[in-house]
Amino acid sequence: MRIGLLGCGNVGGALVPLLRDRADEIALRTGLRLEITRVAVRNTARDRGLDLADGVITGDATAVVSDPDVDVVVEVIGGIEPARGLISAALAAGKPVITGNKELLANVGVELFEMADDHGVDLLFEAAVAGGIPLIRPLRESLRGEPVRRVMGILNGTTNFILSKMSAEGADYGEALAEAQALGFAERDPTADVEGYDAGAKAAIIASIAFGAKVVAGDVYHEGISGVTAADIAIADRLGYAVKLLGIAERDDDGAIGVRVHPAMVPMSHPLASVRDSFNAVFVEGDAVGQLMFFGRGAGGFPTASAVLGDLIDAAVNLRRGTHAHPGRFADARIASIGDSRAEYMLAIDVDDRPGVLHSVTGVFADNQVSIRAAEQEGAGDEARLVFITHVAREADVQATVAGLRNLDVVRRVGSLLRVVGD
Amino acid sequence: MRIGLLGCGNVGGALVPLLRDRADEIALRTGLRLEITRVAVRNTARDRGLDLADGVITGDATAVVSDPDVDVVVEVIGGIEPARGLISAALAAGKPVITGNKELLANVGVELFEMADDHGVDLLFEAAVAGGIPLIRPLRESLRGEPVRRVMGILNGTTNFILSKMSAEGADYGEALAEAQALGFAERDPTADVEGYDAGAKAAIIASIAFGAKVVAGDVYHEGISGVTAADIAIADRLGYAVKLLGIAERDDDGAIGVRVHPAMVPMSHPLASVRDSFNAVFVEGDAVGQLMFFGRGAGGFPTASAVLGDLIDAAVNLRRGTHAHPGRFADARIASIGDSRAEYMLAIDVDDRPGVLHSVTGVFADNQVSIRAAEQEGAGDEARLVFITHVAREADVQATVAGLRNLDVVRRVGSLLRVVGD
Repeated sequence: MRIGLLGCGNVGGALVPLLRDRADEIALRTGLRLEITRVAVRNTARDRGLDLADGVITGDATAVVSDPDVDVVVEVIGGIEPARGLISAALAAGKPVITGNKELLANVGVELFEMADDHGVDLLFEAAVAGGIPLIRPLRESLRGEPVRRVMGILNGTTNFILSKMSAEGADYGEALAEAQALGFAERDPTADVEGYDAGAKAAIIASIAFGAKVVAGDVYHEGISGVTAADIAIADRLGYAVKLLGIAERDDDGAIGVRVHPAMVPMSHPLASVRDSFNAVFVEGDAVGQLMFFGRGAGGFPTASAVLGDLIDAAVNLRRGTHAHPGRFADARIASIGDSRAEYMLAIDVDDRPGVLHSVTGVFADNQVSIRAAEQEGAGDEARLVFITHVAREADVQATVAGLRNLDVVRRVGSLLRVVGD
Repeated sequence: MRIGLLGCGNVGGALVPLLRDRADEIALRTGLRLEITRVAVRNTARDRGLDLADGVITGDATAVVSDPDVDVVVEVIGGIEPARGLISAALAAGKPVITGNKELLANVGVELFEMADDHGVDLLFEAAVAGGIPLIRPLRESLRGEPVRRVMGILNGTTNFILSKMSAEGADYGEALAEAQALGFAERDPTADVEGYDAGAKAAIIASIAFGAKVVAGDVYHEGISGVTAADIAIADRLGYAVKLLGIAERDDDGAIGVRVHPAMVPMSHPLASVRDSFNAVFVEGDAVGQLMFFGRGAGGFPTASAVLGDLIDAAVNLRRGTHAHPGRFADARIASIGDSRAEYMLAIDVDDRPGVLHSVTGVFADNQVSIRAAEQEGAGDEARLVFITHVAREADVQATVAGLRNLDVVRRVGSLLRVVGD
């Protein structure tokens, strides 16, 4: 089974030696010998130390896809174009495709899944969400009969590393980000990670698969972690919560789907709370199965290459047997408004320290039908801060409360608004 | 797609309403309508409150299997016979089978997998290990290319509940067992759970699938939790470890497979340490993927029925398309001797409290080439106890050390021997 590899960076560069090491055992267990016969790269001059035979490396990705000596295509270039065109061409030629491209799938995934199904070949993408963690296959297959209510995940290792550092060391956001950058866990421009766009693309893919619906990246509500302070984390910790950036996909009783990414307070006893450093985890709640969690490395060359290789074997076995995975049908998604989402909230407010302040502040909550579960004052005088945890409330009502609080004379600053999740 | 259900206890009784509730959505997503048309039970007179049509219930399981109006068979009777005969008959008739029967698969699984493959139909068994947690499919498919080194699991909810109680409340084993029995988490005769036989059967199945080898229940080394004391748990806790009953399947560099079940000390920072109460979790270590963990409900009617339903949809879709899952080939297993297994050990020894005792005791360790990483004395006088943690040592050497210590005059009692795992 001859493989054409598009892209040979972090993941592709790990796949080459992994497949070489495992080829004998795979042949023993499946009867198929997998071999990478063509590799398309941008810079053909660079020595990747991969010991590839002469003529394997090329700069022409289109030629790899159309090469009659390529049976299966692996796309690890990333981005929407030219990946979309290359994958479409491969599928149209009846070649199965393995991709780890979350941006592509979160935008035009359903179009590609349907194209693959029309051409009777596999389009597999375990590597696109949560790296090496088997998640897509369990969601697509094991949980196909399960009434999944909600999927929540720590889907971005960079932000989990930063929040873990802030929590363990009391570091500020800026310090923790700088450390993540120094260690190579964060990009020089960290926007896609820290503002939740990376996690949002993954959440959109998860929602599509979990609910069989056409959810795209544009449907996702985003808040990042750049506004989370060391003080927020300290307050959460004292109250028994860890602060995590969660991607959440949920379906309400009417079938509306909500997909959002935001920092959240997770109770310490919740399995997601102990997922530290750059690890990822995805927590699934279903009516029959109860609670499930999948934990592991969400990024990195070898973990991601492991996911690609699992898909590759599957696609190769299917191709040999003339079959393919059935992606199922995707319904149009009715996206729930973020304003209608419901949670408990933690809100910290810097206030003047004088009689009547608590009364004025709680009046704003009451006017907006937001009920308070716990309130406490930290510090005094110029340092006075009120910390509230609400009962379950509507996002729109809480946002109106925040706006109302900003208009109060006695309120100096309205700090972070953190949703409490998983209680 | 007409389903014949063999057994209608906890799992079968949950599958009937779950499938009824989900049939429309499954039809929408797969194009297949699943319906339970025959149910074989031992006691046909009992009212199960399942609202089944007349004529669905029967006492004759063989007739269900051979009924031309049954396309797929679900076996949730348990035990080796008559399940083995019924499953064989269904496979021979070209009918896919879904089973949750760990005892059967841990003894004659490979024979049945090969039979299914010969007849070109599915034999799926996600429910047999770790209940509702998708584990078998990820191991069989997602990780097919992964060089898996070791799989360790909390595979039995009863013992995890007991150990969690002992840890949280300082309870003795007997008290915690009685509470588990009162709550219905433990059988009146708890032997299969507390002595590790249930976890052992699951570990054998995991080893077969993870390593593609013929591992059976008889290959598993067992130690249960009935010897674990509140003092052991307290010492472990003070040293930063949780005590868990682990099922471990590992493969060494020479390809020998070790499969064992025993209580172990797991560092508090390890993901398995925070798996509490009756939850299960399976931790996978691979050379490429790194660390993975799968967490959820390992038992219970609805979680297990959810796993059965996922398999059922898969088998039905495959049957309609004339294909089936390829189980891969199973090699003969070379089973490593438990004496050759290697770990760090914690050993607590009650001793006379007088000069020279530590010297005598450590001499026994030295004579057996067991190197000590940490030693400390607890209590004094009649309460004196020495606690040792070894460096990584061979099991046989540690057992020889224990035997040698028992012969020392100054040693009053050699207490628990707990392996340290996951450091």
